[in-house]
Amino acid sequence: MSLIYPGRQKELKKLIEKLGLPENSSIKWHLLDLALTHSSASAKANYEQLEFVGDAVVRLTASELLFEIYPDCPVGEFAAIRSILVSDRILAKIAESYGFDRYLIVSSSAASDKTGAESRLADALEAVLAALYLSSHTLELIRPWLDPHFQRLATEIRSDPARQNYKAALQELTQGKYKTLPKYTVKETGTVQGGEDRFTAEVRLQEELLAWGKGRSIKAAEQAAAQAAFNKLVSSQ
Amino acid sequence: MSLIYPGRQKELKKLIEKLGLPENSSIKWHLLDLALTHSSASAKANYEQLEFVGDAVVRLTASELLFEIYPDCPVGEFAAIRSILVSDRILAKIAESYGFDRYLIVSSSAASDKTGAESRLADALEAVLAALYLSSHTLELIRPWLDPHFQRLATEIRSDPARQNYKAALQELTQGKYKTLPKYTVKETGTVQGGEDRFTAEVRLQEELLAWGKGRSIKAAEQAAAQAAFNKLVSSQ
Repeated sequence: MSLIYPGRQKELKKLIEKLGLPENSSIKWHLLDLALTHSSASAKANYEQLEFVGDAVVRLTASELLFEIYPDCPVGEFAAIRSILVSDRILAKIAESYGFDRYLIVSSSAASDKTGAESRLADALEAVLAALYLSSHTLELIRPWLDPHFQRLATEIRSDPARQNYKAALQELTQGKYKTLPKYTVKETGTVQGGEDRFTAEVRLQEELLAWGKGRSIKAAEQAAAQAAFNKLVSSQ
Repeated sequence: MSLIYPGRQKELKKLIEKLGLPENSSIKWHLLDLALTHSSASAKANYEQLEFVGDAVVRLTASELLFEIYPDCPVGEFAAIRSILVSDRILAKIAESYGFDRYLIVSSSAASDKTGAESRLADALEAVLAALYLSSHTLELIRPWLDPHFQRLATEIRSDPARQNYKAALQELTQGKYKTLPKYTVKETGTVQGGEDRFTAEVRLQEELLAWGKGRSIKAAEQAAAQAAFNKLVSSQ
């Protein structure tokens, strides 16, 4: 039973193929169609409810993978990596790599809103994840193609020479949660060049002081402040 | 294969029975044992990693149920209900109803910390949800017993005579996310008794103005402010 146009179904089948999923699977095509319909195209039948479910699906996918590949990872680091994996920026990039914009039905006026493009792609990806999850009530239609992306990104994040790029992690976190970026101010506080307390950085979110940190360089002080702020925000989630 | 003491396994079987789950299921007992071991009892082998996964499992369980029972519910309301369902207060109550504290291994000094009891119970419940999810990679060991609790609570929240108790919802949200409570200040702004703008309430989170609202009574103005603040925070999540 299909309530969608044959042309649309053909299109959606192409996307499923691109994801590397078997065609004869249990996919609920009407949910997939809904997942790729923006509210500007239909005020009633669009991806919003699915996106709500998908937000939980993507968190579970990331959590399960991290638990499997890094069983001994400290929980704070888990949370840091997960917050980056499930960020709009990363999800939009993944959606883009499969050309999701070609399958997303959106009004032409909304389509021309370039600033909303990233969150539209990320939202559509979440909605598609919900449609796939609800097709089998497992992650079996998701992990085969999403895991390699997440695994590569998690490895990158962990093997970064600066290892924990807390400034980037803090930025992802505050952008996702508060739609605002952290601001840093740095002062020279030590007179000895190369001294551990040479620079002191403060990091603020909308004028509110989150944390501070010291370091040998401006960069190191900012990273120390970002790390303190990041841990503070993650532990209060 | 079991790496846990026969006595412990017997105890855990009792809990599974209490949850109404079949005994001959695929349950991974070592994960369940871990899920009920607090970090004060073992710094290395405790529930922290599982709790991290469980946080995503409980979100998915709540989301899937809400999507099934209220397919046409506005997304803002979904988010409001979910934030209450997955709150520490609710999860701790559910854990308590099954006597989780009797199964949780915790050092005696941590056990005497009464203020931490609620979050310990909620965390342990999340970890147990992760252990059950990871046993079958579906929600089939979770939804049979958790759904009735969530369904009852969701119905209560939606059928509240004041229907949308935004003050309560905002409190749950800010307590969970920022570990702090919203503060209200109310002024008389209209001189006409019963006028729509008789009172104006402002709601703040740690000195930051979140939103304001007007109403015929102090209560109504506070609810209006809470609703505006709630929607603002939910839409920025």
